[in-house]
Amino acid sequence: MITTLTLQTYGPSLYDFTGRVEDALSEASVAEGLLTLFVRHTSSSLLIQENADPDVLADLNEFFRRLVPHTDETSMGWVRHNSEGPDDMPAHIKAALTQTSLSIPVQNGVMMLGAWQGVYLFEHRDRPHRREVVLHIGG
Amino acid sequence: MITTLTLQTYGPSLYDFTGRVEDALSEASVAEGLLTLFVRHTSSSLLIQENADPDVLADLNEFFRRLVPHTDETSMGWVRHNSEGPDDMPAHIKAALTQTSLSIPVQNGVMMLGAWQGVYLFEHRDRPHRREVVLHIGG
Amino acid sequence: MITTLTLQTYGPSLYDFTGRVEDALSEASVAEGLLTLFVRHTSSSLLIQENADPDVLADLNEFFRRLVPHTDETSMGWVRHNSEGPDDMPAHIKAALTQTSLSIPVQNGVMMLGAWQGVYLFEHRDRPHRREVVLHIGG
Repeated sequence: MITTLTLQTYGPSLYDFTGRVEDALSEASVAEGLLTLFVRHTSSSLLIQENADPDVLADLNEFFRRLVPHTDETSMGWVRHNSEGPDDMPAHIKAALTQTSLSIPVQNGVMMLGAWQGVYLFEHRDRPHRREVVLHIGG
Repeated sequence: MITTLTLQTYGPSLYDFTGRVEDALSEASVAEGLLTLFVRHTSSSLLIQENADPDVLADLNEFFRRLVPHTDETSMGWVRHNSEGPDDMPAHIKAALTQTSLSIPVQNGVMMLGAWQGVYLFEHRDRPHRREVVLHIGG
Repeated sequence: MITTLTLQTYGPSLYDFTGRVEDALSEASVAEGLLTLFVRHTSSSLLIQENADPDVLADLNEFFRRLVPHTDETSMGWVRHNSEGPDDMPAHIKAALTQTSLSIPVQNGVMMLGAWQGVYLFEHRDRPHRREVVLHIGG
């Protein structure tokens, strides 16, 4: 089964959409199988990360901002692809450093996430975006 | 088919568990299909890496330690999530930079790994941990 | 269905092989399912990235070259695994930071890529190499 979720983002941050995926799984009524998520963009990405302390999410975002600064900062002066703004090429790099697809085993109709795991869309662009994540649920 | 492996770790390092996965595959008796591994934690991760020279594993570990130092080092003074120790937030970051899930095609009952590829759990926490890796074997 | 593509590379760069994957999908005649790609090497990797501006690919390559310099540069003096040349250990690290496997949902016989997404082999070694990418196409 394939279904597509649309997620609205408002700047660089990790957006928890675990509940949206759980809802889609419920509708699919698959007892056991494999769920695969796929983000249809190259300037946002997917991560499974801690769902307990929101500081973890803020720190993750900050780490990537420091590792890959905007291209109007001196250390990024070598970047060629600047036509779409100083956040664009860093967004592609951050997407390359994280995930475009993720697979999660499903048992008894639910994802086999660990106790502290949530499913996140990692937005890397500054402006609001509508993002599509495709869900494939297989046997 | 779904099965869960438990792996004991003793500090930051890459732990080869290729043999454990091979054993689980043998029991599953799947001639052709897709094996997916999923780690149920956000401070350890998965990697497929070279199985020949142990220096490669040590160097990988060292690279990540330098890229993401413990939070009691000056360069990481900006980190907020410090309550679980100086190795905790770096562990989440290193997990984000590597893999939570991995998929490997299976043919004639064995993983189609290259000659130099092994399957590793990458532990990012300092203290010993018991880690769970879920295996899904599909058609 | 499992098939293997062989790709020739000529030094560090992102090599677009979206068309090769599309051809293999056509032959498989799978209307709906999941395509998984797996690279059988630890010094090259997979990425889904922007297929529009070639500067994005050049900048990605340059970012990784700066993040993980060759081991004959001073900042990499700590590396132990040097026997296969100054580009070898950095190649393993860059592969660890990107993907060994990728999964893409398939609908109406085609990959559900976004408008700007292409499928790339990311070569990290300096010399020419022949690389194998296994494709698994499941239900």
